[in-house]
Amino acid sequence: MSKAIVLVSGGMDSCVTTSIASKQFSKLALLHVNYGQLTQQRELQAFKDIQNFYSIKDSLIIDMSQFNIIGGSSLTDSNIPVSKTDLNNKKIPSSYVPFRNANILSSAVSWAEVINAKSIFVGAVEEDSSGYPDCRRSFFDAFEKAIDKGTKDDTKIKIETPLIHLSKKEIILKGVKLGAPLHLTWSCYKNQEIPCQNCDSCALRERGFKNAKIKDPILN
Amino acid sequence: MSKAIVLVSGGMDSCVTTSIASKQFSKLALLHVNYGQLTQQRELQAFKDIQNFYSIKDSLIIDMSQFNIIGGSSLTDSNIPVSKTDLNNKKIPSSYVPFRNANILSSAVSWAEVINAKSIFVGAVEEDSSGYPDCRRSFFDAFEKAIDKGTKDDTKIKIETPLIHLSKKEIILKGVKLGAPLHLTWSCYKNQEIPCQNCDSCALRERGFKNAKIKDPILN
Repeated sequence: MSKAIVLVSGGMDSCVTTSIASKQFSKLALLHVNYGQLTQQRELQAFKDIQNFYSIKDSLIIDMSQFNIIGGSSLTDSNIPVSKTDLNNKKIPSSYVPFRNANILSSAVSWAEVINAKSIFVGAVEEDSSGYPDCRRSFFDAFEKAIDKGTKDDTKIKIETPLIHLSKKEIILKGVKLGAPLHLTWSCYKNQEIPCQNCDSCALRERGFKNAKIKDPILN
Repeated sequence: MSKAIVLVSGGMDSCVTTSIASKQFSKLALLHVNYGQLTQQRELQAFKDIQNFYSIKDSLIIDMSQFNIIGGSSLTDSNIPVSKTDLNNKKIPSSYVPFRNANILSSAVSWAEVINAKSIFVGAVEEDSSGYPDCRRSFFDAFEKAIDKGTKDDTKIKIETPLIHLSKKEIILKGVKLGAPLHLTWSCYKNQEIPCQNCDSCALRERGFKNAKIKDPILN
């Protein structure tokens, strides 16, 4: 039985993706990245909670210092404020971390080649999201071709994005149906005890639960 | 005048590539990666020496812990011995670090997007080399497409590989012609005072200088 890697940030999307992957693969390995984001500790906790929930032994936590040094995003540079949410704004928001998914995927591929995993699951969402360019399926398709060319000839690794065309509402409903532990996830971009409900990520989450007519389990 | 990033390991190829890039761009930014390789300190020294030689101010040194944790290569896992050279062996040698160039390039692209660099120079060599899959031009072509899809729409970044089809001999002759500081470079895979002259990297270098009919300036 082949093995799959799941990229798990600790947010809802990666939680539901883990749930989907667990139905398709008997062996999962979870990858989490600390990249100096404001909510690093909170996200790491959510990652560990999800890992424990699914009793997955194989995990890798990577410290990626480059984003913090490079900056250019409100998530990694404290001089750039986290924008107040504006989901109707079609511009790429200040939370965009340049080419983040390529950095994370590259590490996942290195790991996959060593542990012989055949698939990498990513909980990226294309439409109902913040519009990050590295969350588009066209990017993952192009990256898959780069994997084919840049690894050993007998290495075949697919990038699976089961949520890519879903809305937040649909992701939540799928998560609930699959019994995904949404109560363990963290979405807020700010580093505080309770979600700010003011950033894009909180706003997307709130709208999703509202449309799904479900109460968000992390809110009192 | 636009800016270019050069990936500089500290070896001959990246040194000559820096020299070529310096003729085409008035502003260079150099990227070096520590990845827990055995010769990390020696390579970092070579990087700094090359940077000083060209009086380049803009540089970024990234610590990539993932390769060390992931292993799978004699360069990053001390349990895997550095193979004795066998340049006629067509198999990928034990020094192959899985998907290394994608990890490094991804960081370079993140940086390029923030500092607005239009080109990334890589001293990869396809034929006269160790046969690493992520040193083939077909990989860089595929990766360039992934950059196009995964960055902002107005971001255009090219990957330049001026040495890709050259032999080691030709690289050395080009370096000498351009006045590249080959005496500052380091190639050996082993962590010792003088090159082992027994690993693939030393063997490729030795053969290159022999064919170029030039004495290697780092050897007495």
